[in-house]
Amino acid sequence: MSRILRLNMTDKTFAWQEVPAGWAGLGGRALTSRIIREEVPPTCHPLSASNKLVVAPGLLTGAPAANVGRISVGGKSPLTGGIKESNSGGLVSIKLARLGVKAVVVEGKPEGEDWSLIKISGEGVEFLPADDYAGLGNYDTTERLWERFGKGVGVMSIGQAGEKRLTGASIQFADPAGRPGRAAGRGGLGALMGSKRLKALVVDDRSASAVPLNNPEKFKEASRKWAKYLLEHPVSGQALPAFGTAVLINIVNEAGALPVQNFRGGRFEFAEDISGERMVELIKARGGKTKEGCHPGCVIQCSQTYHDKDGKYLTSGFEYETIWALGANTLIRNLDEIAVIDRLCDDFGLDTIEMGCTLGVLMEGGVIPWGDGPAAIEMVKQVATDDAWGRIIGNGSVFTGQALGVDRVPAVKGQGLPAYDPRAEKGVGLTYATSPMGGDHTAGYCVAVNIVGSAGGGNPLKKEGNIDLSRNLQVATAAIDSTGLCLFVAFPVLDNPDALQCIVDMINARYGLSLTGDDVTALGGKVLSDELSFNREAGFTKAHDRLPDFFKENLKPHDVTWDFSDAEVDQVLEGF
Amino acid sequence: MSRILRLNMTDKTFAWQEVPAGWAGLGGRALTSRIIREEVPPTCHPLSASNKLVVAPGLLTGAPAANVGRISVGGKSPLTGGIKESNSGGLVSIKLARLGVKAVVVEGKPEGEDWSLIKISGEGVEFLPADDYAGLGNYDTTERLWERFGKGVGVMSIGQAGEKRLTGASIQFADPAGRPGRAAGRGGLGALMGSKRLKALVVDDRSASAVPLNNPEKFKEASRKWAKYLLEHPVSGQALPAFGTAVLINIVNEAGALPVQNFRGGRFEFAEDISGERMVELIKARGGKTKEGCHPGCVIQCSQTYHDKDGKYLTSGFEYETIWALGANTLIRNLDEIAVIDRLCDDFGLDTIEMGCTLGVLMEGGVIPWGDGPAAIEMVKQVATDDAWGRIIGNGSVFTGQALGVDRVPAVKGQGLPAYDPRAEKGVGLTYATSPMGGDHTAGYCVAVNIVGSAGGGNPLKKEGNIDLSRNLQVATAAIDSTGLCLFVAFPVLDNPDALQCIVDMINARYGLSLTGDDVTALGGKVLSDELSFNREAGFTKAHDRLPDFFKENLKPHDVTWDFSDAEVDQVLEGF
Repeated sequence: MSRILRLNMTDKTFAWQEVPAGWAGLGGRALTSRIIREEVPPTCHPLSASNKLVVAPGLLTGAPAANVGRISVGGKSPLTGGIKESNSGGLVSIKLARLGVKAVVVEGKPEGEDWSLIKISGEGVEFLPADDYAGLGNYDTTERLWERFGKGVGVMSIGQAGEKRLTGASIQFADPAGRPGRAAGRGGLGALMGSKRLKALVVDDRSASAVPLNNPEKFKEASRKWAKYLLEHPVSGQALPAFGTAVLINIVNEAGALPVQNFRGGRFEFAEDISGERMVELIKARGGKTKEGCHPGCVIQCSQTYHDKDGKYLTSGFEYETIWALGANTLIRNLDEIAVIDRLCDDFGLDTIEMGCTLGVLMEGGVIPWGDGPAAIEMVKQVATDDAWGRIIGNGSVFTGQALGVDRVPAVKGQGLPAYDPRAEKGVGLTYATSPMGGDHTAGYCVAVNIVGSAGGGNPLKKEGNIDLSRNLQVATAAIDSTGLCLFVAFPVLDNPDALQCIVDMINARYGLSLTGDDVTALGGKVLSDELSFNREAGFTKAHDRLPDFFKENLKPHDVTWDFSDAEVDQVLEGF
Repeated sequence: MSRILRLNMTDKTFAWQEVPAGWAGLGGRALTSRIIREEVPPTCHPLSASNKLVVAPGLLTGAPAANVGRISVGGKSPLTGGIKESNSGGLVSIKLARLGVKAVVVEGKPEGEDWSLIKISGEGVEFLPADDYAGLGNYDTTERLWERFGKGVGVMSIGQAGEKRLTGASIQFADPAGRPGRAAGRGGLGALMGSKRLKALVVDDRSASAVPLNNPEKFKEASRKWAKYLLEHPVSGQALPAFGTAVLINIVNEAGALPVQNFRGGRFEFAEDISGERMVELIKARGGKTKEGCHPGCVIQCSQTYHDKDGKYLTSGFEYETIWALGANTLIRNLDEIAVIDRLCDDFGLDTIEMGCTLGVLMEGGVIPWGDGPAAIEMVKQVATDDAWGRIIGNGSVFTGQALGVDRVPAVKGQGLPAYDPRAEKGVGLTYATSPMGGDHTAGYCVAVNIVGSAGGGNPLKKEGNIDLSRNLQVATAAIDSTGLCLFVAFPVLDNPDALQCIVDMINARYGLSLTGDDVTALGGKVLSDELSFNREAGFTKAHDRLPDFFKENLKPHDVTWDFSDAEVDQVLEGF
């Protein structure tokens, strides 16, 4: 039976808790959001002892199925002040699941300044001193932890940004190759982990046995079909493995929705230079790897190893969002410069989307010139120094805007906006406005329908249909994020009703349940209710469900504006 | 007939507007808040062109009566994101009233980077280039403007902090001696003025005639009694003129409500060193002045000229709040060091309360040592340089807390708390929590009753009576702030029912009205309604009416905590 592990950072003790009845059917985001909802005072300071950091594998994680190894990390967000779930690949999720850990709840806060490292294994839980790791980046931290505890252990860690409790800080996860290139990036959860003075969590499942399956035969049958659906879909089976998520640069640019120069235009003159196609060309020429999974069991393989011009490892997990944020958004068009910043962000533990928006604001304020990659690199390096600029930019786009007196800041609920202009992709614009997560695309990825053309396609430039689309996808995503499944399963699921049935069948076979597709959808709705009610008590109102005013400006090439009325926006999550 | 002057900063034009019927009976805070309520979109970015800066003399300002020369400055606060009225002494209020200007509304925002200076006189309104003044502190700015436009002109200006649009920026007003020691300090209105690229407003009333009085005889009769009441009250007639507002250091310290070391204790071991008594001793020994008015017509004279140890002018308007914030709160106990910071704040245009709270947070974060005056001075100096620390601390206590990952930040709605610990002065604690202004003492100064003993006194340590007290004073203050009267008239008004009647009689004689005391109170309620409804639409909820959690800690010497329930706090402004 799975249990909840509570780590008390105040007195460095731990306790195992049987899973309360109300949490039994929950996993991943459903569980992190429920625990936060029930146990964290919504008005507490996010860096105070009252906040909790919750880490939970999904309902399917650890079972022998494709793409179920994502981890959910939750807390009251230091960046937005609202509830947050940020999910990531890596090794920790599967290992926790195999060890029978349904969730880890990190509570309290030590009086002193010393750092801890916590090891979870089949032998138990150990609090270890970690002052020797303080000040290290995630690369050095992960390397040392693999040396110390064995190659292949799961590592979840923070870099200098999280140690400094900067609200743009991520939590990084070592990938199967031992590089900290996977991130629970959004919402500043690295700052929350830093406030607990927890440098890293190490998970060693070598003595664990397989995750129990209630009906192994049925599970096998469903999971075999599931992998087939993933591999047969042109997006998850071909486009993503071929070019990574950066395949979207050319696609979104073509759609006129690629935000350029701090959301001034929708089409980037130099998109080709930073495209997925270009990236793959460079990777091949330099001896990197074009296909990798972010966790064991991934059949999509949208990750990669990116080498520098001397053929030396530079970065991995080099995503579309990252390349856009640090590239088109800042007018930097040298992929190597963008890769250097990505590497620095992974190392220091910084959300690349937030940093990209922040660099845009920094350029807006005239601190560094537009498109100046070397200057941007130097600025990002300050995050790991004592320089005050590092403290400014490490706190994200809204903070940097305030520091500079710049009012053109692309953010909702304090979180910088991702790689789709809401005027030319109105569905995802509604998600930005209304998601309890703040400005976020994954929470209701209408792009899959409106731009990629799944589920029969939609119109990204018109209002029609997008209110329902954003709502339905926000509900479905909350469910998907509770299973441990990677979000890219959305493509086959949207196009093939049988794929959703596969997920339901796997959950049923794993736990001996008889859920239907409607039950899974209902779970998504409950997750949103938990999250929205937390936010309401934290002080969020409809007034926070608004895009910045400058989106009323015209956007080229399609001559579109953000034209939803407040009342229309408010319909999206009405009733939750 | 008075008119509204609209200054359009987008195209550098102006227009005169007849006073709309709904605004006729309004002045000061009632008028600034009404205009903001009606014309500023509550969710706009405070530094965007949609925000407006409104400057309004009070209903009685300009008339021949004691202490009616205060000016109200309003806008959507860059610091709190809510509505703001900040009021100040100086010369501008009376001169605007004499020129028949009921309010100045500064609108729009220029495209370019050039600075403007606007001169209002009997000859008209002039937009003048002000790039030559950019980068100057308020001292140099005021001196040059008096040289250029004549000694005695009214000056309202911003320093480097406002130019940089830092949210701790004040707007400074030249006092009768030409020193920019008076401030609309709170809420970052200097940043709003900076966003309009308005360096200074100059008001020359030399060609104006006296303010018209509907019934001069009745006015004279009421105003004579009024001055007598002010002069006869022991607080406004003796204590304040003798020691300035700093007379409160020893009084509040004795009451155990003087916040020490970022609100860790209620009694300061070295209070004597920074007391009003000590200040007066130094002023007398060094040839300063112990009694001055912040505006012509003041009979209280709580201001002063403070010289340095060489007998050279150092600062003026050296208030209790300032001395506490930069002193007891930071453990700095050298009055000269505190005076240097006060001078820097006036010069750069920074709110001294916010800066004091900020320095406390900076010490909390270990950036500079507790009690280190010279280090604090060096930090404050960075506000006028290109150093990023200046941008951090100039944005106030909450911002600095975020930069440093410090969660012990004494603020409500983003605004640093003033000089009374809410645990040991529970009435003002309720005002901090609930005022639409954010953490503010003037909005409902329960100290006058609970600690100074007016109106029969109250108990600052117990909950009983304080909900009503805070509400009643918040309503009354909103009315007082609409008249142009200085807040210290509260002492005689609280102790003598006839003093309130005097105010009503003066308003009636000025305008030919027949208001009663109840009408004036009703005006206060309407002001609060305007402000609270603006804030609700801006996204404020009851969740924002909360003190930071650390006030649940015990406070010495009285062993008190913040023990109001949320429901009790919510009663304070229920119904408005």
